[in-house]
Amino acid sequence: MINQQYKDMLNARSPIRSFSEYATKRAQEIGYENVFDYSLGNPSQPVPNAYTEHTIDVLNNIPSNELHGYSPTLGLPSYKEKIAQSLNKRFGINYKAEHIFPTAGAASAIAHAMRAVSKPGDEIITFAPYFLEYQLYTAPTGAKLVVVDADTSSFQINFDQFEQLINEKTSAVLINTPNNPSGAVYSEETIKKLAHILELKQKEYNHEIFIISDEPYREIVFDNKTVPYVAKYYDNTLTCYSYSKSLSLPGERIGYVAVNPNAKDSEYLVPMMGQISRGLGHNNPSALIMRGVEDVCDITCDMSVYETNMNLIYDKLIELGFEVIRPGGTFYIFPKALEEDANAFCQKALKYDLIFVPSDAFGVKGYFRMAYCIDTDKVKRSLKALERFVKEEY
Amino acid sequence: MINQQYKDMLNARSPIRSFSEYATKRAQEIGYENVFDYSLGNPSQPVPNAYTEHTIDVLNNIPSNELHGYSPTLGLPSYKEKIAQSLNKRFGINYKAEHIFPTAGAASAIAHAMRAVSKPGDEIITFAPYFLEYQLYTAPTGAKLVVVDADTSSFQINFDQFEQLINEKTSAVLINTPNNPSGAVYSEETIKKLAHILELKQKEYNHEIFIISDEPYREIVFDNKTVPYVAKYYDNTLTCYSYSKSLSLPGERIGYVAVNPNAKDSEYLVPMMGQISRGLGHNNPSALIMRGVEDVCDITCDMSVYETNMNLIYDKLIELGFEVIRPGGTFYIFPKALEEDANAFCQKALKYDLIFVPSDAFGVKGYFRMAYCIDTDKVKRSLKALERFVKEEY
Repeated sequence: MINQQYKDMLNARSPIRSFSEYATKRAQEIGYENVFDYSLGNPSQPVPNAYTEHTIDVLNNIPSNELHGYSPTLGLPSYKEKIAQSLNKRFGINYKAEHIFPTAGAASAIAHAMRAVSKPGDEIITFAPYFLEYQLYTAPTGAKLVVVDADTSSFQINFDQFEQLINEKTSAVLINTPNNPSGAVYSEETIKKLAHILELKQKEYNHEIFIISDEPYREIVFDNKTVPYVAKYYDNTLTCYSYSKSLSLPGERIGYVAVNPNAKDSEYLVPMMGQISRGLGHNNPSALIMRGVEDVCDITCDMSVYETNMNLIYDKLIELGFEVIRPGGTFYIFPKALEEDANAFCQKALKYDLIFVPSDAFGVKGYFRMAYCIDTDKVKRSLKALERFVKEEY
Repeated sequence: MINQQYKDMLNARSPIRSFSEYATKRAQEIGYENVFDYSLGNPSQPVPNAYTEHTIDVLNNIPSNELHGYSPTLGLPSYKEKIAQSLNKRFGINYKAEHIFPTAGAASAIAHAMRAVSKPGDEIITFAPYFLEYQLYTAPTGAKLVVVDADTSSFQINFDQFEQLINEKTSAVLINTPNNPSGAVYSEETIKKLAHILELKQKEYNHEIFIISDEPYREIVFDNKTVPYVAKYYDNTLTCYSYSKSLSLPGERIGYVAVNPNAKDSEYLVPMMGQISRGLGHNNPSALIMRGVEDVCDITCDMSVYETNMNLIYDKLIELGFEVIRPGGTFYIFPKALEEDANAFCQKALKYDLIFVPSDAFGVKGYFRMAYCIDTDKVKRSLKALERFVKEEY
């Protein structure tokens, strides 16, 4: 008999997908260029040529059985080594190859990290606004995802509520900075404060509490800033990364977990993820994709377009009177809707072919997300539609 | 705190891996060519040139964002379509693209299939000898793997014990034909009998019992035979496939689940696997690998070497007085050891640099597995060592 639990999930439609599907349908009626589709976080920038060239080179020059053979259980050594070196150089950590566990993107990284440091009955805390898939990632681990309400004044962390919710059962804290959907980058002050609280709580409860740091947007940061590297501030950190955004490779499912060498039991965590992998049916990302990425893991696509788009949108939102926090990174912005019901707001926007996603999908009411990974010309045209929308409807 | 259950797994060494690691170490001492390493099922045949050429073509000609972008939740339509067509042409089924769920190899296929048709507390029956990873695949689903003892007279199915073990809690039967480790191909008679029993039991228990058919060796079959296609004999069949063996792509993690269109609830099963995927952190195999495989899904490597090797080994084993069933396919053979303790037998073989795997790893006592995916010259030399081993030790 089929599993009713998974069958029931088919009825719960993703609001992001619903709006995105509407956009696709609308594009067939009025042309793709006329639909201002801000629904999906699909990177728009081309993959660096170096990636393509290197992959072709590898296909031509490595004997096929060596290239496409099984990777070792804990991943391709060259990929692990190059990532460790790259992170060490950039962030001053002391990773070795054995601290890197290759995964099929950040989703797979989080799946492994969660299971490594929590067990059924534990609680994993995250902070709204948050990527709604986190609920689905957590459920099959048997742990419970506990959500701290948003600090809507800055989209940093609501520490008061966090300190109320953390308890003996808390095994991990799942953070996402730069943040989807708010675009906020956690400040050094925020991360230090979080680390400080966790250090105290670890002592109080006499067990480790890990930070699982979901960082696929780490390289998309504005105003020439850099994102504070979480693992530098807290030893028990598992850094989950994906090349989906920085190399525009979301379909290749490629990323890693980096285990802080200073973490408790750091020597066991990657081998444990190798075991976890067997139960998930994961067993390494594609060998060809690891080979392709390892030589370009220090570069990114040209991501300046995201900053250009952000500035255009932010300025117009302010001009039109929206309440909005200026994003520090990502390709998202998260303004307050002009009425309480964000869904009603987004439905009205459809009349102007503006496709937004209501914030209920991210654990906050009354906001909406715009994913501005689209071309700048379309952003400019969309802002005229936005102006008409606001003036005619509000 | 780290998850003790996964940490404890680190102490349970895989016997296959232990023998394989010994072989690698020994090769450093006496040279790779002098170690007769029959431990690992790593395909030895080169990947077809057509695969490499097609992949390079795709890298050169599809715009990078289209090529490497997110695949739809239920997989790349072109890959699904071409597999459906290929299976229909070969086996006379009526798959549509929507019955194909792309996965990261057979392990991932089984992970999705098991969760789709069983729930915690259910029982999944499999038949010894069996691939020991099945225990690890099943454990995190919450279902229980129930193992039917081997029919050592033929390595077909021990139906008497099967009928004793099947019960109301049985949600699925996991089979693997051609079989790792025995090399047996289930006959049409075996599959028909299995299907008949399951039809009766479905009626008796008033619920479906699915066959999960693990078929990565389907194309490695000897004596110009073909493997009976299980889904043709039983409607509620989920066919799990990997291109690891037929295209020598084990490191690329590429395969699928094919849902029989006649299965109960067949329209829900692939969408349910899309939901299951979110919890597993899977979300599609690599898009580039799907594109590479879709155009060559009808061809295989030259696999005649496996049959050549099998014949050489089988004839010598018979000559030396081993009890052994002649394999119908795969690149495995599973003779009876010359003493009761298969592990002791395999340890003694090491003196002759013959690396075998004792059958305890496959749920049977007293046998050993030879994986003959190595070159034929080495097979010939190894048989002299085998002869010496038998004459000197037994």
